[in-house]
Amino acid sequence: MKPTWIAVDWGTSNARFWAIGADGSVLGERTSDKGMGQLAPSEFETVLRDLAGNWLSSASRVVACGMVGSRQGWVEAPYQTTPCAVCPSTMVIAPTTGSGLTVHIIPGIRQTDPADVMRGEETQIAGFLAQNPGWDGVVCLPGTHTKWVHISANEVISFQTFMTGEIFALLAGQSVLRHSIAGSGWDGDAFADAMSQTLARPESLAARLFSLRAAQLVHKTDTVTLRARLSGLLIGAELAAAKPYWLGQKVALIGADAVSAPYITGLASLGVDAARVDAKDMTLAGIKAAHALLETVV
Amino acid sequence: MKPTWIAVDWGTSNARFWAIGADGSVLGERTSDKGMGQLAPSEFETVLRDLAGNWLSSASRVVACGMVGSRQGWVEAPYQTTPCAVCPSTMVIAPTTGSGLTVHIIPGIRQTDPADVMRGEETQIAGFLAQNPGWDGVVCLPGTHTKWVHISANEVISFQTFMTGEIFALLAGQSVLRHSIAGSGWDGDAFADAMSQTLARPESLAARLFSLRAAQLVHKTDTVTLRARLSGLLIGAELAAAKPYWLGQKVALIGADAVSAPYITGLASLGVDAARVDAKDMTLAGIKAAHALLETVV
Repeated sequence: MKPTWIAVDWGTSNARFWAIGADGSVLGERTSDKGMGQLAPSEFETVLRDLAGNWLSSASRVVACGMVGSRQGWVEAPYQTTPCAVCPSTMVIAPTTGSGLTVHIIPGIRQTDPADVMRGEETQIAGFLAQNPGWDGVVCLPGTHTKWVHISANEVISFQTFMTGEIFALLAGQSVLRHSIAGSGWDGDAFADAMSQTLARPESLAARLFSLRAAQLVHKTDTVTLRARLSGLLIGAELAAAKPYWLGQKVALIGADAVSAPYITGLASLGVDAARVDAKDMTLAGIKAAHALLETVV
Repeated sequence: MKPTWIAVDWGTSNARFWAIGADGSVLGERTSDKGMGQLAPSEFETVLRDLAGNWLSSASRVVACGMVGSRQGWVEAPYQTTPCAVCPSTMVIAPTTGSGLTVHIIPGIRQTDPADVMRGEETQIAGFLAQNPGWDGVVCLPGTHTKWVHISANEVISFQTFMTGEIFALLAGQSVLRHSIAGSGWDGDAFADAMSQTLARPESLAARLFSLRAAQLVHKTDTVTLRARLSGLLIGAELAAAKPYWLGQKVALIGADAVSAPYITGLASLGVDAARVDAKDMTLAGIKAAHALLETVV
């Protein structure tokens, strides 16, 4: 079987391409480290043609999501504004110089008050809803910038982004704490204890961070324990702020296993049983949903 | 007049040397960028002899404070443990190879629970108390790692370190917010508004950070406004956590003008009138106080 179209997840750092057959099956998968962050608008087409290669002999349509549609990307795909359908009815077509190639870009979603934006996550949510028709509740997408998204009747009602993942990386890797935080490893009790501290008293986050460094100097506390404690402090503070999103709600997590685990543990301790699905799977399912809509419209 | 001793403030990044006369007057001041962070223990003596130079023909005693006394410094000056006298009765003598030079190092202070440490700030506090005998209250030392210190009867009773300055620098310079935060400039209203948000609802800090980026994307908010807003969010969260240190207390700030200004504004809005003194002046006064104690003991 030959591919009839190509699905693309083009983020800041990486790109992933799938060749899709007429029956929707995945015929091939390729990745590139040529993310949006290092490409000028005019360079995207070349990267796509290089990577898609032989697929283009039978596939002429591309559907892409992610930062490829940002102002710094291939072409800006203007945000939809909440409340809005998870799956967009229109996509933007990227400019191409060669013939026989139409590239559709899925728009991100923005919220006016409080100001917030997403680009890429909306496609994962669309994939999740395609696999769970009629699902209402809250989707949490843990990552560098974790998003909590309230979904009702196939619409994004509201959402909130937390920089928890990026702040963890900055503190553990580049602040004075870097001397005291192990690069890997886990201590479940230390995580739970720290999380309950900032969940109950969110103001203690500011006071507790330097204590991680001091604990190592004064008490020789193990750096793996301190790693879990830092994660617990930050996720506890996030859960305290995100309470309207999880309290009494049905919650689904879309994320990789490692980044989701502390959220699942934390939510479980709050009596919230969050089901997890894989982010990569949902991305592809979401691009397929957008493609199907395109077929309908055309 | 010739110098009789040398005062040294030797930090991680820089060193500052003062030549002191028999009457306590400053006869000269020299600085070096050879901070503790780039020196092996055996290299401190050479740097000191090079920089002090001709001063050493009449001065043989050196009194130093700061990271020079850390485990990675010239010689480890073990911490005093709270509660403890602000001015230490004993100092550690650094090993020297040449003759005619005795280097005394002022120890830092540690706290067991919650774990905390200071090295350098204790000298600034000693200088402040030397100039304000019998002063009781709370000293705030704003900086990369801001410290709040409860002082009573010339003793450090307890203290708490906040990473506010370092976190501001990381977020403004290295996170996704770097695109949205101006390198300088100020907006007093934006600062006050953001500070009052996190002061009243500390959990909102986690939710508000990414909003700074989103505000620029969605509302084209000015990056100077966003700089002041970031500062306000972080200092509001610190003041919420440090409430036991300032509520109903007499507060003195030891710090440079720029780094102290937002704290003075923030505290004033809470009805706390904090007097400011200069950090460099207090450092020298504190080293002089330690030197005087040495004279008494000898």
